[in-house]
Amino acid sequence: MIGGGQGAFIGGIHRIAAALDGMYELTAGAFSSDAEKSRATGVLLGLAPDRVYSSFQELIAQEKARPAAERVQVIAIVTPNYLHFEPAKLALENGFHVILDKPMTFSLAEAKQLEQVAAASGRLLCLTHTYTGYPMVKEARQLVAAATLGTVRKVYVEYPQGWLSNFEEGSDNKQAAWRTDPARSGVAGAMGDIGTHAFNLLEYVTGLQVVKLCADINTVVGGRRLDDDGAVLLKLSNGSSAVLMASQIAAGEENNVKIRVYGEKGGLEWQQVDANTLRVNWLDKPSEIRRAGTGYVSSFARHNTRTPAGHPEGYLEAFANLYRNFALCVQAQEAGTLPPPEALDYPGVAEGVRGMAFIENVIASGKSTEKWTDFSV
Amino acid sequence: MIGGGQGAFIGGIHRIAAALDGMYELTAGAFSSDAEKSRATGVLLGLAPDRVYSSFQELIAQEKARPAAERVQVIAIVTPNYLHFEPAKLALENGFHVILDKPMTFSLAEAKQLEQVAAASGRLLCLTHTYTGYPMVKEARQLVAAATLGTVRKVYVEYPQGWLSNFEEGSDNKQAAWRTDPARSGVAGAMGDIGTHAFNLLEYVTGLQVVKLCADINTVVGGRRLDDDGAVLLKLSNGSSAVLMASQIAAGEENNVKIRVYGEKGGLEWQQVDANTLRVNWLDKPSEIRRAGTGYVSSFARHNTRTPAGHPEGYLEAFANLYRNFALCVQAQEAGTLPPPEALDYPGVAEGVRGMAFIENVIASGKSTEKWTDFSV
Amino acid sequence: MIGGGQGAFIGGIHRIAAALDGMYELTAGAFSSDAEKSRATGVLLGLAPDRVYSSFQELIAQEKARPAAERVQVIAIVTPNYLHFEPAKLALENGFHVILDKPMTFSLAEAKQLEQVAAASGRLLCLTHTYTGYPMVKEARQLVAAATLGTVRKVYVEYPQGWLSNFEEGSDNKQAAWRTDPARSGVAGAMGDIGTHAFNLLEYVTGLQVVKLCADINTVVGGRRLDDDGAVLLKLSNGSSAVLMASQIAAGEENNVKIRVYGEKGGLEWQQVDANTLRVNWLDKPSEIRRAGTGYVSSFARHNTRTPAGHPEGYLEAFANLYRNFALCVQAQEAGTLPPPEALDYPGVAEGVRGMAFIENVIASGKSTEKWTDFSV
Amino acid sequence: MIGGGQGAFIGGIHRIAAALDGMYELTAGAFSSDAEKSRATGVLLGLAPDRVYSSFQELIAQEKARPAAERVQVIAIVTPNYLHFEPAKLALENGFHVILDKPMTFSLAEAKQLEQVAAASGRLLCLTHTYTGYPMVKEARQLVAAATLGTVRKVYVEYPQGWLSNFEEGSDNKQAAWRTDPARSGVAGAMGDIGTHAFNLLEYVTGLQVVKLCADINTVVGGRRLDDDGAVLLKLSNGSSAVLMASQIAAGEENNVKIRVYGEKGGLEWQQVDANTLRVNWLDKPSEIRRAGTGYVSSFARHNTRTPAGHPEGYLEAFANLYRNFALCVQAQEAGTLPPPEALDYPGVAEGVRGMAFIENVIASGKSTEKWTDFSV
Repeated sequence: MIGGGQGAFIGGIHRIAAALDGMYELTAGAFSSDAEKSRATGVLLGLAPDRVYSSFQELIAQEKARPAAERVQVIAIVTPNYLHFEPAKLALENGFHVILDKPMTFSLAEAKQLEQVAAASGRLLCLTHTYTGYPMVKEARQLVAAATLGTVRKVYVEYPQGWLSNFEEGSDNKQAAWRTDPARSGVAGAMGDIGTHAFNLLEYVTGLQVVKLCADINTVVGGRRLDDDGAVLLKLSNGSSAVLMASQIAAGEENNVKIRVYGEKGGLEWQQVDANTLRVNWLDKPSEIRRAGTGYVSSFARHNTRTPAGHPEGYLEAFANLYRNFALCVQAQEAGTLPPPEALDYPGVAEGVRGMAFIENVIASGKSTEKWTDFSV
Repeated sequence: MIGGGQGAFIGGIHRIAAALDGMYELTAGAFSSDAEKSRATGVLLGLAPDRVYSSFQELIAQEKARPAAERVQVIAIVTPNYLHFEPAKLALENGFHVILDKPMTFSLAEAKQLEQVAAASGRLLCLTHTYTGYPMVKEARQLVAAATLGTVRKVYVEYPQGWLSNFEEGSDNKQAAWRTDPARSGVAGAMGDIGTHAFNLLEYVTGLQVVKLCADINTVVGGRRLDDDGAVLLKLSNGSSAVLMASQIAAGEENNVKIRVYGEKGGLEWQQVDANTLRVNWLDKPSEIRRAGTGYVSSFARHNTRTPAGHPEGYLEAFANLYRNFALCVQAQEAGTLPPPEALDYPGVAEGVRGMAFIENVIASGKSTEKWTDFSV
Repeated sequence: MIGGGQGAFIGGIHRIAAALDGMYELTAGAFSSDAEKSRATGVLLGLAPDRVYSSFQELIAQEKARPAAERVQVIAIVTPNYLHFEPAKLALENGFHVILDKPMTFSLAEAKQLEQVAAASGRLLCLTHTYTGYPMVKEARQLVAAATLGTVRKVYVEYPQGWLSNFEEGSDNKQAAWRTDPARSGVAGAMGDIGTHAFNLLEYVTGLQVVKLCADINTVVGGRRLDDDGAVLLKLSNGSSAVLMASQIAAGEENNVKIRVYGEKGGLEWQQVDANTLRVNWLDKPSEIRRAGTGYVSSFARHNTRTPAGHPEGYLEAFANLYRNFALCVQAQEAGTLPPPEALDYPGVAEGVRGMAFIENVIASGKSTEKWTDFSV
Repeated sequence: MIGGGQGAFIGGIHRIAAALDGMYELTAGAFSSDAEKSRATGVLLGLAPDRVYSSFQELIAQEKARPAAERVQVIAIVTPNYLHFEPAKLALENGFHVILDKPMTFSLAEAKQLEQVAAASGRLLCLTHTYTGYPMVKEARQLVAAATLGTVRKVYVEYPQGWLSNFEEGSDNKQAAWRTDPARSGVAGAMGDIGTHAFNLLEYVTGLQVVKLCADINTVVGGRRLDDDGAVLLKLSNGSSAVLMASQIAAGEENNVKIRVYGEKGGLEWQQVDANTLRVNWLDKPSEIRRAGTGYVSSFARHNTRTPAGHPEGYLEAFANLYRNFALCVQAQEAGTLPPPEALDYPGVAEGVRGMAFIENVIASGKSTEKWTDFSV
């Protein structure tokens, strides 16, 4: 693991996600660029001292120097955005598989370069767009793909948060500090942090691509250096339209990412607060409540649950689904076999490049006086 | 009553709303321009035959000719949009108070003219934007007005319907036929029919005005002559921003009009499907569920309920609240007294003019390649 | 109307329910045994002074003395329980149809006597068990009757309220005073006031009868003279079992009456707080959300709604459904025709007798040390 | 681990719960009494072959024979009920801490004996009553303990399931087979499997004890040998009353265990389907929605979450909370220190004995013709 020292949030989540199914063992880490901090985290996690490093370069070099059977197979990179590209590139080039926190890189240019590196390396990369790991999000995608709703006509996707309603970066909030800092986060704040999740969810569930957008991007809290709120009108590849809303100043909201997709015959609705439920509404018959863990859901939903219906699974399990599916694919690659299609269904390099394109396009549109901006990659 | 013959939808609703509190008695009507149909409706409603007319002109002339104590006091106009202006004008000019279905007129020009007529007449006009009649919508407005949430920063308002997902106007659907006909509905379809409700709800709850907008207006169903879907980015008078979504092709949706308002300290959420509940979320304490009919709500909410908490009141009661409040204001005017502030809180001419301005501005923005259109009245 | 003077709650509700569909006109009343109070209420309601009476005997005698076309047809009795039997009996015996608030009488003996009076009179009697007026309760009954769920195996029905959590009868609460007074309410408090509603709902929805019961009846608030809480184990006529819970000291609860019925193949759930929804769960397929006002519901549900799906109807509309259905049956009887089956579906004498039997049996069981008490009528 | 071979359900859950926080490492197991099956499971889980045993006796003997630093510290027993007592007793007597699936034993007599063994051993025992591991259940207990609601007056607790609606034990359903077999499950079916969970939840949240009960116990499905449904009236140690409902033939229900507690000033409600929410209703002010992961919850709730508010945690996390808290207590004991009170809050021997007493008392009451049965231990 690279990053994820004390005080970090997402590193701990990655460790739980990796541990949950017993398919990963954490054996090495460069948890901080401060050698002492990295060492302390290693002690806390019970790692062998000689596998705790003070830089990602050192981790990659030393692990590569170990016999194949004793080195790490997969490197998880859980650093802030500006520290994604270099370690991911180096890891891939040295033969390691990579799990990378989103968004993929600091800029679209980096993302496209990383795409080439990954392709050349023959190694696998998983980008942790957690929400697509939920079983009922997968069910939604399958329903749309099977044209159960008919042609998609309208999509609403939203990610409202309230935690940046105050000037948190002015206090001792490490999470707020880097996310609102252009030097560490990139050109976008809210749009990069959660707008990309909404964007990814939209493209994942619908199987469509955004082709044009028109954005209203705002920085609401005084003194803040990046956007903390935005709404976007979108045109999709089949000619339909969509709305994307993401805000970090929606005071009182937690993380209720939600998507609604309307087709010719009906619509579906999923939201994280009730993650194990997918509601499907029809033009002329009763609505359906589909539930995770039941016998009637698709193989993609079933593959991504661990408990019978009614025992709620949540965010950590969705995260763990990415880890598990990636592990199955890595194992298959190493074994020279084909993983099941359900396992292949994890977010990777292609999603990462489109996410970075979204960030750059949406910020450009926010600044533009033209109504529509073409979505360029 | 003018309009509301057999086959009409909203006329029946108006009659229930008027009857519910026993403050109105239906005594005269021109229910259809077809004399026979008007007569038949009169029979069905038990009206005296000599009070059933075959045109609004006849109704107004004949009723005016009756002794003051025996003529109608208030005329409800429940015709399609293109038949709002003339009867409303004539009624006001002849000394009758008017209850008018929304949107106020066929065009903004008519609306502004009617505004002058109403002012000159000294008579009162109520425009039936039903949703502001709900007690918990009134509670929301009071909370925002009292700055309980701090300054408003973001608003989401939406009105998704699915009933025009097919080409209903091609079949025998009278409601669909006139609403999708430019000659009877005006320049807008969905934006006029339900977009205006969402717009009115936004301005009512926040006490703010829309100053700019950027609209994506769509006609999704083939052959349709007016918009059936749209989404709008908005700038509000205090510098904040909003999103408005209205669709009649959101397949499977009923009429779940919903508003969310976020301020500095918290946010509130109301939706018609759970109309007796107002949820208030805070940055740093438990969310509140405020309920209609309880002892702790504002006088505005209390004034607009009839039953103790837990006995749901709905759409007809919200509609009846407009009728009752208007009756109280008419009675007060006739008595030369002041109505209570809670009764004065009904939508009228000013809201009607802004609603028509919304329709024209939003359609213009939809056609524009410029990003932002100033909201002009 | 008999009863329903100022300060009364249910009288006002009856008046709204009667007015809502324009099928009743309130023309006479004995609103209080205090002549002055009765007169004052009559003025407030705009009644002719000579139709406002100071006793039910006077009302019945005087109205009967009027020409048939000018007298009241239906008498609504909205007094406390101890004043149900005498006026109902007198009204029926004198040829008036009766609408009577629940429970039917003060005692089971009275109820059985009234049953005979009603049968002999040839007049109709409607007992206002409001909850069976909800369209989705009717839908539930139809689903069970059609064996959609298979044989019924288990029922849970509950009516939790919190409004008697304090010793309200010690203060100026007129509603609490008579409901907790054995001389006016009868042998039961909560069990009579709301337990009967739950009991009626159970027998209505399932089409089954209670045959045995085992009750835990409690008076929780100090100084109270009747029960304010109870729970009952029940055996039903098909051999299945049920649980009934009713409480007036469930602090913080409003009036969320709720029923769940489980059959061999699935279960259904309805609750007043979401009255326009009926949820049906299945053993092996997605749950269904059935909604009032849609095209797919049964004729019984459809007959009892006034607005398209998504415009919530509530308690007053459910109450009005009883009034409307009763009016249709009275009209049919007068016309010598048959009312539609949907109109015949209102609670009457039979339900009233069983309700009174429930009250006496449940109180007896509460006092018994025997486990099971046979349900005797 | 003892038990938990292939085909078992709860064994896998225990392994995830143990892995989630990285505080346990699975190193040894007797997964089946069939040596070959045990071995196969060991291979699947990546255990060293010499740590996979074919009986619990062998596991305990061999592990004890290892040097202290190399033997297992905690033994998880995840076998059917009839195989709880012997291995738990042996493990405790040989110095191992024990995690035991519920209910604690096959009979109350065994439970009381195990209580003595545990006390004498000085070792710790955790009984996996999962639902008390949820953070908002802990919040509920804290609120009641702090008398925030005033004295408890009424409790409703329920656990409806539908999975045994058919004669599953007649087909190849291993889970159904042992749970409906008196020789493996004990005197109770549903009451032992899920009734004990409801009972434990009631006593945990309220801090009260059941002192009397009156049960209606049913076997609904033909051919079944143990109860599959029941409802119980209860008297609690402070004089208040309660209702407990548990069913496995509530067709269409998943696992929505739910508890409602009413005090003098307000009531609270928690249910597994919305596990991260605790609703608190008040007599005279807005209801509160308390959410897991927020800053305002008690230290007990906070201690048992891993993610910020809005990222749902579920059943596996609740299970993992038991494991984590137990690990903290084991570590503290080994270190000779005191664990934090939040960690001590896990279900143990005392809860196990009461659970077994519930099973025997409730079945006895079900057979009795007396109304009330004293709760005897």
